[in-house]
Amino acid sequence: MPLSEFDLIARFFADLTPGRADVLLGVGDDCALLEVPVGQQLAVTTDTLLEGVHFIAGTDPESLGHKALAVNLSDLAAMGAQPAWVTLALTLPQADEGWLAAFARGFGGLARHFGVALVGGDMTRGPLSITVQAQGLVEAGKALRRDAAQPGDLVYVSGTLGDAGLALLARQGFHVVPRFRDFLQERLDRPRPRLALGRSLAGVARAGIDISDGLTADLGHVLDASACGATLYIEQLPLSEALNQYVSEQADWSLPLSGGDDYELLVTLAPERQGMAESLAAECDCDFTWIGIIDSAPELRCVDANGNPVHHGNGWDHFATGAGAPGSNQ
Amino acid sequence: MPLSEFDLIARFFADLTPGRADVLLGVGDDCALLEVPVGQQLAVTTDTLLEGVHFIAGTDPESLGHKALAVNLSDLAAMGAQPAWVTLALTLPQADEGWLAAFARGFGGLARHFGVALVGGDMTRGPLSITVQAQGLVEAGKALRRDAAQPGDLVYVSGTLGDAGLALLARQGFHVVPRFRDFLQERLDRPRPRLALGRSLAGVARAGIDISDGLTADLGHVLDASACGATLYIEQLPLSEALNQYVSEQADWSLPLSGGDDYELLVTLAPERQGMAESLAAECDCDFTWIGIIDSAPELRCVDANGNPVHHGNGWDHFATGAGAPGSNQ
Repeated sequence: MPLSEFDLIARFFADLTPGRADVLLGVGDDCALLEVPVGQQLAVTTDTLLEGVHFIAGTDPESLGHKALAVNLSDLAAMGAQPAWVTLALTLPQADEGWLAAFARGFGGLARHFGVALVGGDMTRGPLSITVQAQGLVEAGKALRRDAAQPGDLVYVSGTLGDAGLALLARQGFHVVPRFRDFLQERLDRPRPRLALGRSLAGVARAGIDISDGLTADLGHVLDASACGATLYIEQLPLSEALNQYVSEQADWSLPLSGGDDYELLVTLAPERQGMAESLAAECDCDFTWIGIIDSAPELRCVDANGNPVHHGNGWDHFATGAGAPGSNQ
Repeated sequence: MPLSEFDLIARFFADLTPGRADVLLGVGDDCALLEVPVGQQLAVTTDTLLEGVHFIAGTDPESLGHKALAVNLSDLAAMGAQPAWVTLALTLPQADEGWLAAFARGFGGLARHFGVALVGGDMTRGPLSITVQAQGLVEAGKALRRDAAQPGDLVYVSGTLGDAGLALLARQGFHVVPRFRDFLQERLDRPRPRLALGRSLAGVARAGIDISDGLTADLGHVLDASACGATLYIEQLPLSEALNQYVSEQADWSLPLSGGDDYELLVTLAPERQGMAESLAAECDCDFTWIGIIDSAPELRCVDANGNPVHHGNGWDHFATGAGAPGSNQ
C-alpha cells in the first residue's frame, strides 16, 4: 500500500521544523501561520529542479535535496535576506522510501544548518520534479536589488567561477585530472549558498545578484535593471586551481565568464565602502574578489591586462539563460 | 527560437502585478520584497496540479489557470486569511503562446478579482505541471485552525456538496441530464474560493478547513487535530438540484460525503455564535448550512432523520486522501 502524503511528510520531514518561535503553525493545516517581525521585509523566491532538465536521471537524491534548497537560499542570499521558512512541492514517480529518506537528509542537513523551517508542502505522483519556495527576512530598505548599481561602483564576486561548468563537462566525458574531481563534483552538486556574506553586505553594497545563470548573463541583469554598463578585468576573475589549469590549457574563458550553476554572489559597491565590505567578507571567511567596475555607457566589456577586449560568450542583452541552470525568481 | 523565461513572464503575466503598495519589488529580481503590516500574520500554502493526476491531457488552459490559483486561495480562505501574493512555478512541454495566453487569462482573471499580485515564478520545460504558492494575511490570533474544534460546536458548510464529484462521473460517461451539465462543469473546473466567508468568520468560528478531499475526510482532519468526534445529519447536507436528483435516484450518499474537489469551507462554531455567523454568511451572499455537531467521543457518525447510522465512504482515521484532489498544505 502506498504511503499517503501525510505519512510521508510526517515521517521524513518532521524533524525539519525546528523550534522557530515565528512558526505559529507549521505543516498540518490548510496553511502555515508565520510571524514577520516589525521592521523586516519579506523576501520570496521559487525555483524548480526537473529531472532531465536540471539533473540527469539517477542523480543521488541526497545531493538533489541539498541542491533544491540551496538554489533557493542562494536567491535569498543575493537579496541580503536571512532565510526563515520554505515550502516543498515534490512530484515523485513512486513513493520510494529509500529515495525519500536520502532526499530529506540532503534537504534537512542544509535546512538545519541555516535554521530554516519547512512549513508546508505537497506531494504528487508523477515525473520527478522539485519546487521549493523560500522566504527570508531583510531589514527594511537594506535589500540588495538588481537596479541599484551606479557608475563608478566596484564589482565584486564571492568564491571562484566556472567550477560547476567544468564539473558538468567532466561528467560529459571531458578529462579532468583525478585530484580535482571531488572538488568539482561538490561545487556542482552541493553549492553552499552565500547567506552570511549576503546578510553582511545588506545595507553596505548597492546591487546584488547570484550568478546561477553565469557571470556575464547575471551581471547583464544588473546592468539592464540599473541602466548602466560594466568593464570586467578578466585576469582578476577568481579561479580555483582546477579552473586555472583548464583556462591555461584550453585558452578558453567561457566557463568562468558564462558557465552557469555557480551559486556565488556578485555585488556592486560604492568605492568608499570597499574596505568595509572586504572586512565583512573576511569575517564570513568568504573569498571576495574585485573583478571590474560599473560604467555609465550601457555595454559589458571584458578586457585583458593590456586593455584588449576579450570575447564573452553570453551577450547580456539577449538574456540567453541556459536551460541547464534553474531560473531565478523571474 | 523559443521564448526565454523572461520574455514569457513579461508578456503574459505582466498585468498580474496590480499596484499593491505592499509589493516593494515584484517579478524581476532574485526575490520579491513584500511588506507584512504590523499585527498581521502570514498564511502560506502550496499546491501542485499535474497533468494525468489532477487533470486530463488537453484540459482547457484557461480553466487550469483559474483552478491552479483557486485551490490555493481556497486554503487561504480556510484559514480566514486575506490573499495577498502568489508565486507560480510552471513546467510546460513547449512554449505554446496560445496555451500560455489562455492560462494567464484564467489565472489572471481570478487574481485580479481578489487583488492578488503575482510576485515571482519559474518556468521550466517538461511534463505539464503547475505549482502555486499563495500567501495571505490574517489578524494575529484570528486564524481558523484545524485544532480548534470543541465538543458542542455546530458544524457548518458553505455552498453545496458533491457537485465536482458528479461532474467527474459525467466526464467519465455517467449520464447527467443536459440542463445540469454546464453547472456541474463550472463547479469542477472553476471553483470559487470562499474568501469573503473565510475572512468574515476569522475570529468568529472556531475550527476551519476546506473540503477539497471530501467532506468526511476533511472533517476527519479537524476531528483528529482537535481530538474529538462528530455527528453529521445526512438529510441536512446542502445539495444542488443535480445532486439531489443523483442521490434520490442512486440512493447513494457517497458524492456529498466523500467526493473531493468541492472547494467549500467547513467550520465549527460555538452555539452562541450561530446567529452572528449566519448573518455574516448572508452578507457574503453565501449558502451556509448547519450539518452536524462536534462530540467528545472520537468517532465520526452519519445519521439519517431517524437517527439510524449511514455508511460514510472515507474512514477519517485512515486519511485516505484521494489521488484525484490536490493535497492540502500538508
